[in-house]
Amino acid sequence: MNYRMTVHVLGILMIVEGALLCVPALTAAVYREPSGMIFVALAAALVLAGFVITRFKPQKRTLFARDGFVIVSLSWILMSVFGALPFVISGCIPSFIDALFESVSGFTTTGASILSEVESLPKCMLMWRSFTHWIGGMGVLVFIMAILPLSGGTNMYLMKAESPGPSVSKLVPRVRTTALLLYVIYFVMTLAEFLLLLAGEMDAFEAFTIACATAGTGGFAVTNAGIGGYSAYSQIVITVFMILFAVNFTSYFLILHKKFKEAFSTEIRAYLIIVALTITTVSVDIRHLFGSAGEAVRHAAFTVGSLMSSTGFATEDFNLWPTLSKTILVLLMFVGACAGSTGGGIKVQRFLILGKSMRNEFRVMLHPKQVRKVKLDGHQIEPEVVRNINAYIFLYFLIYVVSMLVLSLDGFDLTTNFTGVVATLNNIGPGLNAVGPTGNYALFSPLSKSVLIFDMLAGRLELYPMILLFSPLTWKK
Amino acid sequence: MNYRMTVHVLGILMIVEGALLCVPALTAAVYREPSGMIFVALAAALVLAGFVITRFKPQKRTLFARDGFVIVSLSWILMSVFGALPFVISGCIPSFIDALFESVSGFTTTGASILSEVESLPKCMLMWRSFTHWIGGMGVLVFIMAILPLSGGTNMYLMKAESPGPSVSKLVPRVRTTALLLYVIYFVMTLAEFLLLLAGEMDAFEAFTIACATAGTGGFAVTNAGIGGYSAYSQIVITVFMILFAVNFTSYFLILHKKFKEAFSTEIRAYLIIVALTITTVSVDIRHLFGSAGEAVRHAAFTVGSLMSSTGFATEDFNLWPTLSKTILVLLMFVGACAGSTGGGIKVQRFLILGKSMRNEFRVMLHPKQVRKVKLDGHQIEPEVVRNINAYIFLYFLIYVVSMLVLSLDGFDLTTNFTGVVATLNNIGPGLNAVGPTGNYALFSPLSKSVLIFDMLAGRLELYPMILLFSPLTWKK
Repeated sequence: MNYRMTVHVLGILMIVEGALLCVPALTAAVYREPSGMIFVALAAALVLAGFVITRFKPQKRTLFARDGFVIVSLSWILMSVFGALPFVISGCIPSFIDALFESVSGFTTTGASILSEVESLPKCMLMWRSFTHWIGGMGVLVFIMAILPLSGGTNMYLMKAESPGPSVSKLVPRVRTTALLLYVIYFVMTLAEFLLLLAGEMDAFEAFTIACATAGTGGFAVTNAGIGGYSAYSQIVITVFMILFAVNFTSYFLILHKKFKEAFSTEIRAYLIIVALTITTVSVDIRHLFGSAGEAVRHAAFTVGSLMSSTGFATEDFNLWPTLSKTILVLLMFVGACAGSTGGGIKVQRFLILGKSMRNEFRVMLHPKQVRKVKLDGHQIEPEVVRNINAYIFLYFLIYVVSMLVLSLDGFDLTTNFTGVVATLNNIGPGLNAVGPTGNYALFSPLSKSVLIFDMLAGRLELYPMILLFSPLTWKK
Repeated sequence: MNYRMTVHVLGILMIVEGALLCVPALTAAVYREPSGMIFVALAAALVLAGFVITRFKPQKRTLFARDGFVIVSLSWILMSVFGALPFVISGCIPSFIDALFESVSGFTTTGASILSEVESLPKCMLMWRSFTHWIGGMGVLVFIMAILPLSGGTNMYLMKAESPGPSVSKLVPRVRTTALLLYVIYFVMTLAEFLLLLAGEMDAFEAFTIACATAGTGGFAVTNAGIGGYSAYSQIVITVFMILFAVNFTSYFLILHKKFKEAFSTEIRAYLIIVALTITTVSVDIRHLFGSAGEAVRHAAFTVGSLMSSTGFATEDFNLWPTLSKTILVLLMFVGACAGSTGGGIKVQRFLILGKSMRNEFRVMLHPKQVRKVKLDGHQIEPEVVRNINAYIFLYFLIYVVSMLVLSLDGFDLTTNFTGVVATLNNIGPGLNAVGPTGNYALFSPLSKSVLIFDMLAGRLELYPMILLFSPLTWKK
């Protein structure tokens, strides 16, 4: 372990978070809210502490794989702890575990809340809550990489550990430029949604917070009515952007370079087909609940887009929808978004690779002497990648099982526990029954909340960094 | 495809099933039931037809992998269709799909029923229902192999396709002798349970049917009260045998040869640890529901043994137990029995291998340059076996998802559908809510029943034979 370099990166992180805290501070200034002082003080403290820590320059700047995992997990834990402080200090969320839950839920772009209503909160708090989605969506370490020169192999390990999906592809040879390009795409798309929402009935505050929450595929709203309270126009804009932010960002880069064929990779096509098919099925299934077919399609598209992209916004209480729709929605939560997007879930690409290797296995069984390779988009999938995905899925269900067991101690029904874990581990937000769109996570015990906090972090960081942080294997010499 | 040889084996199967039908016919003779004539007639017809078919001897007797899969799946489908006829002809179960459900449930040792009460059925029908468990438990093709000389590699492909678990180990070099040995162990253990039950309050009919249902890890009872109506003594005997029949039969063979260390393999130890841990936890969790601690332990042990071994007997309505216990029970349904036993589920061995390969993956991630191998009981697990298990798990969940979607069309709650599929695909029997221990499967639509019939067969034959039967890959030249 390169401890000094780890501490150094954490120092940089503190400075960056301090800088980001200026956004809610500014909001407080605009709306003349006294609680804005908390953000100013915390920002100052973090920047100062960060500067002191980064004064000590590490001699060796090289990081290895396990350093990468540890730095990523520690960064996210630290960032969430600092992010929870404004809620506690202001008294908006007096309990620390609740505030941490809300902060982790924000950064991990989950959007699961312990608050039963949000309109009584100061605007600066709501801004911070939604802004954490935007920060967490693309990843804060990717951000640091985009602005800071780190040496050699360092960057790739960090990027691999923080980015969603089984394989990270560099857009350009230099990792730093790749990170910067991703942020530019992210920023421009967020801006586009902000402007389109502003063209509707929303004010600047609403448009900005909702755009941040959509971009990060988060799901925190700033009104108690959620997205259901907005016009059909706004709902449609949000639907489109939820679906767009769950697409692999590499595709946008390729489209900009007019490489359309490569942009519409097998994963993107599979994703769009799933979206289209499920919207159609759910629309038919819920048609009788709405006045017009158009309304049914709008709510179906919104909900499918929201859950598959792992945003978790709701316009309707899908808890009350027929069983077929509910089953489809729960399945979409598992599938999740495309690799390399801001969305959560297991990711379409992993399922594609698993499906292809299963087909290959059929062939081997029928003709034991023929050996074939698994291919995707013309590229051969290395056996190591398949093996890693399989281990990933197994670990995923293991975390699932342990979480379910802990939650079941609280005595709520199976569906609540089951979907509660689905909704946090896949960074979605709402589940079904007690944790459905009209419910919240306040009802769970502190132990269960801790487990769900772990699940949200594990889900966002794609399991390994969080698991390896607690594995003796990592800390063995 | 060797079509002639396939038909030949199916002919043998008909003769064997005809012979087995004499058991209920004999029961009818003892109890002077007129419906016994149905069994006599059907037995005669099957034996006759079988003799005619087997007159035509195939020239090539060699079978390849895909022939093995097709023979196994067709045998089981045919056997179940014939097995359903007595129920339909006698009018006990007038609907063919319901009768087929009951017959498949019997042969696959599931024990899921569409009957709301069983005591009005003639004893010969109940005998046939329970006896199918015994036939299906060890596998009818293994039985054919034990009594008939088949040539060369043929046997191993059939045995591999019909036996549970990721790898079939031969007890002795000759496959036929292995099959015979397994049947002797199976027979002796069933006899032991029969005698022990007879020593209690049961009559010969009850003791025999319950022993058959336990041996095959089936779960059909012959009274409406199920096992709850019997004495504590009988319940304890059944508990012990349920746990014993879920152990890899190879272990018994090794114990007979005094190879105790090899008999208690990692899988057996893991299985026994899981059984002990879950009995303890459930006992504590349900303690307050019973008058004494002993009673709580008895019901916990019975239910854990019943669900983990995939038998599905019930002494208590565990639907009413606390959430923690219900969660544990549902998880046990997934885990299932040991490989090479008569039990269902994913099997302990598969989880062990997956767990070990996950641990190995952690090592690779932390130290990318070190290559290690996965080992179990000192033997190296070939990458092909791990790959096959991974494909198995993926296919398992795929079948799961499709089944859930079809069932959800019927509109029952998520837990009913979820556990209904768990209970059939893992050959257990009862699930939770509407398909709980006091419910039954009659409520589902014919479409859902067909899917569940497929699931029971797929589960018993370890997925591949049933899936490959319907795969174009199998039928391609």
